[in-house]
Amino acid sequence: MKPVYRLTVSCPDRVGIVAKVSEFIACHGGWIIEANHHSDTESGWFFMRHEIITDSITIGLDQFKALFAPIASRFEMEWQITASEQKPKVVLMVSKEAHCLNDILFRWKSGEMNCDIVAVISNHDDLRGMCEWMEIPYHHVPVDKQNKAPHFAAVEQLIEQYQADTIILARYMQILPEAVCTRYPGQIINIHHSFLPSFAGAKPYHQASVRGVKLIGATCHYVTTDLDAGPIIEQDVLRIDHGDTTEDMQRMGRDVEKMVLSRGLRYHLEDRVLLHGNKTVVFD
Amino acid sequence: MKPVYRLTVSCPDRVGIVAKVSEFIACHGGWIIEANHHSDTESGWFFMRHEIITDSITIGLDQFKALFAPIASRFEMEWQITASEQKPKVVLMVSKEAHCLNDILFRWKSGEMNCDIVAVISNHDDLRGMCEWMEIPYHHVPVDKQNKAPHFAAVEQLIEQYQADTIILARYMQILPEAVCTRYPGQIINIHHSFLPSFAGAKPYHQASVRGVKLIGATCHYVTTDLDAGPIIEQDVLRIDHGDTTEDMQRMGRDVEKMVLSRGLRYHLEDRVLLHGNKTVVFD
Amino acid sequence: MKPVYRLTVSCPDRVGIVAKVSEFIACHGGWIIEANHHSDTESGWFFMRHEIITDSITIGLDQFKALFAPIASRFEMEWQITASEQKPKVVLMVSKEAHCLNDILFRWKSGEMNCDIVAVISNHDDLRGMCEWMEIPYHHVPVDKQNKAPHFAAVEQLIEQYQADTIILARYMQILPEAVCTRYPGQIINIHHSFLPSFAGAKPYHQASVRGVKLIGATCHYVTTDLDAGPIIEQDVLRIDHGDTTEDMQRMGRDVEKMVLSRGLRYHLEDRVLLHGNKTVVFD
Amino acid sequence: MKPVYRLTVSCPDRVGIVAKVSEFIACHGGWIIEANHHSDTESGWFFMRHEIITDSITIGLDQFKALFAPIASRFEMEWQITASEQKPKVVLMVSKEAHCLNDILFRWKSGEMNCDIVAVISNHDDLRGMCEWMEIPYHHVPVDKQNKAPHFAAVEQLIEQYQADTIILARYMQILPEAVCTRYPGQIINIHHSFLPSFAGAKPYHQASVRGVKLIGATCHYVTTDLDAGPIIEQDVLRIDHGDTTEDMQRMGRDVEKMVLSRGLRYHLEDRVLLHGNKTVVFD
Repeated sequence: MKPVYRLTVSCPDRVGIVAKVSEFIACHGGWIIEANHHSDTESGWFFMRHEIITDSITIGLDQFKALFAPIASRFEMEWQITASEQKPKVVLMVSKEAHCLNDILFRWKSGEMNCDIVAVISNHDDLRGMCEWMEIPYHHVPVDKQNKAPHFAAVEQLIEQYQADTIILARYMQILPEAVCTRYPGQIINIHHSFLPSFAGAKPYHQASVRGVKLIGATCHYVTTDLDAGPIIEQDVLRIDHGDTTEDMQRMGRDVEKMVLSRGLRYHLEDRVLLHGNKTVVFD
Repeated sequence: MKPVYRLTVSCPDRVGIVAKVSEFIACHGGWIIEANHHSDTESGWFFMRHEIITDSITIGLDQFKALFAPIASRFEMEWQITASEQKPKVVLMVSKEAHCLNDILFRWKSGEMNCDIVAVISNHDDLRGMCEWMEIPYHHVPVDKQNKAPHFAAVEQLIEQYQADTIILARYMQILPEAVCTRYPGQIINIHHSFLPSFAGAKPYHQASVRGVKLIGATCHYVTTDLDAGPIIEQDVLRIDHGDTTEDMQRMGRDVEKMVLSRGLRYHLEDRVLLHGNKTVVFD
Repeated sequence: MKPVYRLTVSCPDRVGIVAKVSEFIACHGGWIIEANHHSDTESGWFFMRHEIITDSITIGLDQFKALFAPIASRFEMEWQITASEQKPKVVLMVSKEAHCLNDILFRWKSGEMNCDIVAVISNHDDLRGMCEWMEIPYHHVPVDKQNKAPHFAAVEQLIEQYQADTIILARYMQILPEAVCTRYPGQIINIHHSFLPSFAGAKPYHQASVRGVKLIGATCHYVTTDLDAGPIIEQDVLRIDHGDTTEDMQRMGRDVEKMVLSRGLRYHLEDRVLLHGNKTVVFD
Repeated sequence: MKPVYRLTVSCPDRVGIVAKVSEFIACHGGWIIEANHHSDTESGWFFMRHEIITDSITIGLDQFKALFAPIASRFEMEWQITASEQKPKVVLMVSKEAHCLNDILFRWKSGEMNCDIVAVISNHDDLRGMCEWMEIPYHHVPVDKQNKAPHFAAVEQLIEQYQADTIILARYMQILPEAVCTRYPGQIINIHHSFLPSFAGAKPYHQASVRGVKLIGATCHYVTTDLDAGPIIEQDVLRIDHGDTTEDMQRMGRDVEKMVLSRGLRYHLEDRVLLHGNKTVVFD
């Protein structure tokens, strides 16, 4: 994969945005190898993502930012440009279940994930072995059920210490306090199971089985203060039938969770997910 | 397709059920070409379905019923035996949307649906042409929004008049009164859209779009007095993305609805769906 | 759906194409509501499709063509611009099987297909009723197995007479002569079944069953002189298992064929399929 | 999961098989928790699988075998009964690619795979670390391209030494000699990529891209002397489009390969795959 710049833009839609931006890029010798646009006619908002080969462009990242700023300002853009070579720092948060962690770490080792995994934080010590074998720092931060504040304070401190760009709740099983959610908007990614139709409350697999549900699924979304209702990055389902035991459903649940989380994370790391309010545009 | 008998049984699970039933069938020369069993360990309930070639068995349907009754009684079975040649009578109920109706009628004409479609009932006159072309009686029974009772009374009378075994709500868009739901338990089948996670209330496609939902689906279920929460026969989803307009989502919604309803109906007509409380076992 | 212009372009890739094209569009007040770009790094070829709202642009279709020609020439573009309001003329060719025909006609009636279906041609008379009910001219052109030339001559004459833009082989079951294939490049669309792995020769369902194949599929492609090996527009599969009879496999075969053909046709009619040699880029 | 016996039977189809077998099981107090039957009408062959709870049955495995033998003989059955507690011994064969190995090992560690993984054999040393971390013996047996016989001799010796019941070619990339294939019928499982339609020869991803293929897949099958054409256990596909680079296709290829191989292996280990000639019946 050649090194690229990734430019993402969202702004009020109007005539001339693409012309202006692509003229700017062409002007500086930028060779666009992937481009995506989306006009959301309902909200009147425009979304755009470009991949530009680094070695064709005649200006560096800082100069790009300086020269592009006036255009961005004129069109009231929310925008960013990143270099694929500057890998985002990722902190993984887990509990006892290993399936999502293993899947992400294996893909990362295989070069599928464009990031540095800088630490794993857990409220249990179970998954230390896997992380240490991969030479990733593992922090066991226990939770006191009567007083969870010290746990979250320690977590927040670790996130800051590692200067994490992205925090992945890979079956972390704890509800983050509102303050943490709002401190890292669009930076915390969660995975949770979903059903069709969905079942609120405890023992969802049991409820699903009782009504004869035929699909189990998972949703990968950004964490907001509105529990499990943040903007959706990716979803998928697997088919079940009456013959599947609770064990089978749990196995398939793990499969769909890890698949969806890893896909969602990859989209996020490649700046493919653009956020506007509670809506996501995913240029996959 | 050779003519078959279909025997379905559900009863408390215990040792010896299969032995007894299969010995009975073998004893009378019955050649089983399809057999399915399911032990639901949670509820302790056993489900079984057999297809037996008609011309190999030495007893007729009435004699089978008479001779099998003592076994059924001993094992406290809910059971039925049907002959594939005696086609169930189906009444379709529709409103203005044609996609489910067209799909069912076309499959029926092609010989995929083992039933007689005896009538179509609608609160609008829009779909008369399609039905009359297929030579199916079409009954336009208008709904007075201020007083729906006469509509439902007329509907019920038509169902009785046609001696319908199965009633399909193929986008009928009206909520059947409780009395009708309870009069035909396990005989009324509905299709409704579902999302992952699901959205209650109005304009579900709009809500789904706002949160960036990636899958739209449909659920085919038996109608009970608990609105849209009856036992599930079949479900499926289609993948959408941000580029899909409301029109696209509606088109895909129609596709998944008709696909799921036609599959569900076929399972029902072939006695593949066994009900126990709110649970379904579908031997597909 | 608002009326739009659809501009498709493919040309050798280089810096500045998007800038030039989008500047041209913006310059004439064109509001782009959908844009797709693809750089094929292997072949060095660039593909682009734009939807522009008709009533925002200050020039008509002819003027657009005249003014855009110099740009197209400079970048060595293959290009076209069409107005969604000028519907392509479609001729459907069928044999005895109705599933693809019914699906296309129903979608067309529902407004999903942006075209005029001007005629149906068949080597049998079986599907006349369905077409006449929909008021579409039906031409029964029998095939003499000893001498097929008169059949194809008559077919070609009908295609010319109706000035067809697109010819759909909706289970037509005859192999078109090379001369016809080459006369309408990128205009004839076929559907054929595929397996994974595929089975050449006769009775593919039988062969598939014997080896325990788990998926059956269909491929929608442009017709070239290389039988069944033309550029692919769309594909899909359905899952089968050992319990599926030949009848079941045929039913599922019909389902996947009609689904894939209708999707492929829709992409084609909306100018979403760009061809370059044997490769397709489908901006769906 | 409670310990169970798994009885699999295949034999010429005739009246009375199920009756006889289920009577035998019931007679000895066997509680059947899962039962599957299949009559292959084309070949006239009957297939059956039962799971019987171990602690309900009044006879042990040896006694079962002795008492059941006369029935088996009478109906000309191929049959086996296994105890879920006696785990099959599995040898994994790999080359340099880790994705299938990692997936199987992780699922095995999680308790999803009912087997003992007794050794990993490879023609390269690359995957030693992962295996040693999991405490599985790793044998590096290099291949001399000029003379492969010593490699295969060593491999065969290792298989014998470990008394392997099942050999998994988890991207082993070597073609086993005919003698090895025939020595372990129905015991060697392979995974290979497939396309729709399939591409023979080298660089399949490249060929697929050139023709615009929309699905990539994988097939898990038993190894026979007919290369890549053995009976199929499991298959699946993932959807690709023109925007997917060769890297993307390779990533998705890995995903579908590991998914399909792990599913196929699980079916095999639970005696869910019944073989008859080149046909498989998979009771999943």
